[in-house]
Amino acid sequence: MGSSFGQLFRITTWGESHGGAVGVVIDGCPARLELSEEDVQRDLDRRRPGQSEIVTPRTEADRCRLLSGVFEGRTLGTPISILVENKDARPDAYSEMKAAFRPSHADFTYQAKYGVRNWQGGGRASARETVGRVAAGAVAKKLLSKLSQGRFEIVAYVTQIHEVTARVDRASVRVEAVERNAVRCPDEAAAELMMALIQSVRAEGDSVGGVIECVVRGIDAGLGEPVFDKLEADLAKAMLSLPASKGFEIGSGFAATRMRGSEHNDPFEIREEKIRTTTNNSGGVQGGITNGEDIFFRVAFKPTSTIARDQKTVTISHEETTLAARGRHDPCVLPRAVPIVEAMAALVLCDHALRQRAISNFEFRNPDG
Amino acid sequence: MGSSFGQLFRITTWGESHGGAVGVVIDGCPARLELSEEDVQRDLDRRRPGQSEIVTPRTEADRCRLLSGVFEGRTLGTPISILVENKDARPDAYSEMKAAFRPSHADFTYQAKYGVRNWQGGGRASARETVGRVAAGAVAKKLLSKLSQGRFEIVAYVTQIHEVTARVDRASVRVEAVERNAVRCPDEAAAELMMALIQSVRAEGDSVGGVIECVVRGIDAGLGEPVFDKLEADLAKAMLSLPASKGFEIGSGFAATRMRGSEHNDPFEIREEKIRTTTNNSGGVQGGITNGEDIFFRVAFKPTSTIARDQKTVTISHEETTLAARGRHDPCVLPRAVPIVEAMAALVLCDHALRQRAISNFEFRNPDG
Amino acid sequence: MGSSFGQLFRITTWGESHGGAVGVVIDGCPARLELSEEDVQRDLDRRRPGQSEIVTPRTEADRCRLLSGVFEGRTLGTPISILVENKDARPDAYSEMKAAFRPSHADFTYQAKYGVRNWQGGGRASARETVGRVAAGAVAKKLLSKLSQGRFEIVAYVTQIHEVTARVDRASVRVEAVERNAVRCPDEAAAELMMALIQSVRAEGDSVGGVIECVVRGIDAGLGEPVFDKLEADLAKAMLSLPASKGFEIGSGFAATRMRGSEHNDPFEIREEKIRTTTNNSGGVQGGITNGEDIFFRVAFKPTSTIARDQKTVTISHEETTLAARGRHDPCVLPRAVPIVEAMAALVLCDHALRQRAISNFEFRNPDG
Amino acid sequence: MGSSFGQLFRITTWGESHGGAVGVVIDGCPARLELSEEDVQRDLDRRRPGQSEIVTPRTEADRCRLLSGVFEGRTLGTPISILVENKDARPDAYSEMKAAFRPSHADFTYQAKYGVRNWQGGGRASARETVGRVAAGAVAKKLLSKLSQGRFEIVAYVTQIHEVTARVDRASVRVEAVERNAVRCPDEAAAELMMALIQSVRAEGDSVGGVIECVVRGIDAGLGEPVFDKLEADLAKAMLSLPASKGFEIGSGFAATRMRGSEHNDPFEIREEKIRTTTNNSGGVQGGITNGEDIFFRVAFKPTSTIARDQKTVTISHEETTLAARGRHDPCVLPRAVPIVEAMAALVLCDHALRQRAISNFEFRNPDG
Repeated sequence: MGSSFGQLFRITTWGESHGGAVGVVIDGCPARLELSEEDVQRDLDRRRPGQSEIVTPRTEADRCRLLSGVFEGRTLGTPISILVENKDARPDAYSEMKAAFRPSHADFTYQAKYGVRNWQGGGRASARETVGRVAAGAVAKKLLSKLSQGRFEIVAYVTQIHEVTARVDRASVRVEAVERNAVRCPDEAAAELMMALIQSVRAEGDSVGGVIECVVRGIDAGLGEPVFDKLEADLAKAMLSLPASKGFEIGSGFAATRMRGSEHNDPFEIREEKIRTTTNNSGGVQGGITNGEDIFFRVAFKPTSTIARDQKTVTISHEETTLAARGRHDPCVLPRAVPIVEAMAALVLCDHALRQRAISNFEFRNPDG
Repeated sequence: MGSSFGQLFRITTWGESHGGAVGVVIDGCPARLELSEEDVQRDLDRRRPGQSEIVTPRTEADRCRLLSGVFEGRTLGTPISILVENKDARPDAYSEMKAAFRPSHADFTYQAKYGVRNWQGGGRASARETVGRVAAGAVAKKLLSKLSQGRFEIVAYVTQIHEVTARVDRASVRVEAVERNAVRCPDEAAAELMMALIQSVRAEGDSVGGVIECVVRGIDAGLGEPVFDKLEADLAKAMLSLPASKGFEIGSGFAATRMRGSEHNDPFEIREEKIRTTTNNSGGVQGGITNGEDIFFRVAFKPTSTIARDQKTVTISHEETTLAARGRHDPCVLPRAVPIVEAMAALVLCDHALRQRAISNFEFRNPDG
Repeated sequence: MGSSFGQLFRITTWGESHGGAVGVVIDGCPARLELSEEDVQRDLDRRRPGQSEIVTPRTEADRCRLLSGVFEGRTLGTPISILVENKDARPDAYSEMKAAFRPSHADFTYQAKYGVRNWQGGGRASARETVGRVAAGAVAKKLLSKLSQGRFEIVAYVTQIHEVTARVDRASVRVEAVERNAVRCPDEAAAELMMALIQSVRAEGDSVGGVIECVVRGIDAGLGEPVFDKLEADLAKAMLSLPASKGFEIGSGFAATRMRGSEHNDPFEIREEKIRTTTNNSGGVQGGITNGEDIFFRVAFKPTSTIARDQKTVTISHEETTLAARGRHDPCVLPRAVPIVEAMAALVLCDHALRQRAISNFEFRNPDG
Repeated sequence: MGSSFGQLFRITTWGESHGGAVGVVIDGCPARLELSEEDVQRDLDRRRPGQSEIVTPRTEADRCRLLSGVFEGRTLGTPISILVENKDARPDAYSEMKAAFRPSHADFTYQAKYGVRNWQGGGRASARETVGRVAAGAVAKKLLSKLSQGRFEIVAYVTQIHEVTARVDRASVRVEAVERNAVRCPDEAAAELMMALIQSVRAEGDSVGGVIECVVRGIDAGLGEPVFDKLEADLAKAMLSLPASKGFEIGSGFAATRMRGSEHNDPFEIREEKIRTTTNNSGGVQGGITNGEDIFFRVAFKPTSTIARDQKTVTISHEETTLAARGRHDPCVLPRAVPIVEAMAALVLCDHALRQRAISNFEFRNPDG
């Protein structure tokens, strides 16, 4: 009972990695938004396996079908159902996993929770589940773009792989620079080091993790619902719901813990006739509500759990054994996680944009108010 | 519309710092649990202002009244309403805030969102709102203790204030060691440095932040609802909903980004006839579901935004001005945030424990299953 | 876990009839709405016991306290907490109920569900719980009035008590006519018969039920969320959640089952330059969405379960016994249920008005659209 | 944003009558339940068009595909996605509806709400949407049967078509008797009259409505969540969310309004060592919670809005016109609504059974409790 996300722009994803298909239902998308399969396919192509030499060679075209909610090129206000068939499923590659639990995967915990699991390739815990998130995120991005009259922009990118860190100008980075290389890091020099690292790690049968940063521009002040549905709280939930994520920080993040209030506070000033902050340690959110500045946050991803080395583990019948991955996998999840991070951020923002519409712009003014 | 938290053990908090009272309604607590005002008061006393020389001197007894849901010392299964009156409210101390926005507070964003705000002491954005969370958390702790036959333990503690870091044995630390000093750091040597630092920072009219770690023991495998309501996702949301928090990490957290899969993976082994992991980089959660190991996570808190120094800011009518805090405040929120972190973690776990009860232990076994 | 109602204008009620207090938290009310305790008190006074000779003599002033969410006479956008103390609680009057279950009350089912119950006067199942609904409904009415620029009107009234039926012109009836007599029936002749009946029934130690009709005017077309949260579905839920209600019908209701499509269909016409229906068998709702016509529905209430006659029943220890009510009670719940029906209808409409605001009036027009 | 139903056993339906497909996602079904496409198909076949001479001749095989959530014949605990393609869609048959609004259909209200509509055959407002409900209901029935060790039984049947009423022994009626004739009325004599009536009404280009009664056996005491999610409240919502329904009553229903308390109350007695009621005017629910007796309720359906006669209406550009149905349709919806009523009731009960599991059977007993 945890397959839905959002209050007003609400998605429900479904599907296992080796079942018949994966998909998503989006409920709450306003009517009359232009929407086509191509809009959705664009982001799915950024997420799909087999795009480059540093990701898994599983060959899935991941062509989406838009089954409902759209009529004559526009949304109807009714649920939008999107489906992607599983084609290159090779359940045989996973036969050893039927009995043995892969370390740091969800095999053991699914078995403990449900008393059963689809042991073919991770089942529901596979990153393949994120197909539905990315498809829904593409719709959310379109809606946010419309709502902001084109000012909305979202750019996620890899800033660190293992010990390799990138230098990125957060204020100016664009999607084009991110998409220029397979690792999705806009610092070209760092990107080359990262790619070399990923390839050598793969050769060693090992894996690496890293950090993705995401910046969102063009969001008005006022989004976020204190005290529990603060914008950063919903972003944190969204990001920690991603496979392999271990941490989240917004604005100054953990670095704030080593600053003093007098350094950390963001003074207000008037800029271009608007109330703005001089600095942006807040990361675009104060008290759980956007303040009109760029929103930015970072997500930590652990090294891929699937590695091609022998690992100690146990079987369902409590026998100790060893296991080495044979299935196809990514030695580093970050390049393909970039569009997923964007999708989840767009879903959070879209939901909060609708929530704010419900309560804003009333004319309950007092005479002198 | 963001004042409720939890699906089955659901709380709704209400109240402003200078309104008539603050409180919470808990809906979904099972019946027949022993519960008294004293059970709740114990944690409220750990949270309340005026406990020690390093926290705000606001003098609130914070006596709770249990208004419903309990009969003859036991819960009824009906909503539990708990109320704490605001006594030491001094709205006059905040008159300058009526027009000017305090930097890095929620004054500006509440005004932008709602078109109005209670400018007396932070209103709803004040940490006083957490009274309701702590009260509800006390009930959640009691329930978790019952559900686990007394095995449940939760211990949060300060591990870092600004540059001072503590050494804590996560496996053995107990609440008693945490409560031994005013800063709530179980490393006594570090605690002394922290207290000295906080006092000198206060003398300078400045503030500091830091990190709180929380460890939870005695939780069975199986809690957490993939794919969106993963346990770490709900913990992340809970923690980022706290005033002044900027980051969350579970298990290895951001450090995982600098490890290889072969180092990071937690091998399985059989220990005391149970499936256990040898290491615990996962932090007790795999694929969003508890694995029976200790759960641990860390929360980053920024330095208190309220400082007694002149800061540049603007007024509601777009005039630039300066502002220095006059109200009472904490130079460092962490000591009082310790019971709040515990409360939120207990609420998440309690909710997931009930969610798991709904779907577990069915006798849908196949003959040989 | 069923004490909350509404998606965006969401209320949570709490309290037992003989606990310390009863109350409600309203989350999601837009900011800047003028609101005072008097606004709320007005409807509470219509609901309270002891108003007239045909209702229970329990003497509760039912003075409300508005504890949060309002500042300087206007809502803040934060949760509104309203509390009413229980004063005239006489737990002794109920001592027999500790062991024996009152027929057709909730005593047995609460015991079966929770394993415990507050046996003093019905506890949570008492109609006293509706204090919170009426208080919240008063806020909803104010908001609907503002949202509709004063066009919103809601009028509920008794149309039948036992065999006495009233003739009411649904199109023109006003609250003033309803409030003119104690039974809240705008047909004065019928009202007199009803009052005489209620008094004679009380003298016999018996009770009667009846029907309340409610008409709502001034609601625009477009409210209601197919396919599950249709307006009539949420109204039906709201009404069947009331104590003693046994049925709900909208528009033509059960009478529709004896009509042909050619009689029942509401033709469209242009009236005053608007699309209107000639008849209104639909009751203002088509396909779950308001069509701009008056909304009207009826609710069936059973005779009060509490009667002053010996009734056969059993005790918690399975002994057969007899029981006659000693507590104060209403021989007919309908007069006091009138403001409760209005409150629930206002809550449903208010919630749907906010839901519709979230998705309406987008400028996603195509050039020729 | 109204396409989901249920709290723990939660369904989301999607699809228009003439889009690519219709379907449902079920989230929250416990794991290890045996489930096959055949289990689902059985009820879909009872709902599908073209079954008999008294229903619409639209020829849809309505074969379902089970796309996720099941593995090796058992549920996984993950979302179950079920899809049915639309085959016999004839959008041309509806071209007149592009401009003109069909009386008492949802054409006008969808246009008013969303500013757009799929005018081909009713779109989302078509009864075709109920395919998803029936599919999910089949899963709910299986689960309830397992949960009750086979005691659960649900039987819905037609008791009235226009002026023809049936006599049915509610205590003993079985599904087999209902399925014996095309009108789904277990009183064979009445069924013949009903069928003749439906055929003559169709010949006249007209339509009729009626009443469906539903009885549920084998549900333990304790289901239902006061005060808003009372069992009858959720049943009422479920039934009023059905196309063409206008009323709901439980137990004695509207007839209760003409009874006295002394007649209406259900005395308790000890029967077969259990606490039982002598009569069952309550309809199996007291105070919103099941009492272990049979649950029964009735739903009023209006005559089908689609009739083959000229009707006055208007176009989207405010021109008055006439319209006569050309598409295929049912002259009476009730025979096909029988499995839909059963499905919705099963969904409500299943959801409440899981909700009760979450909070029941705790061992918080006091020594003498």
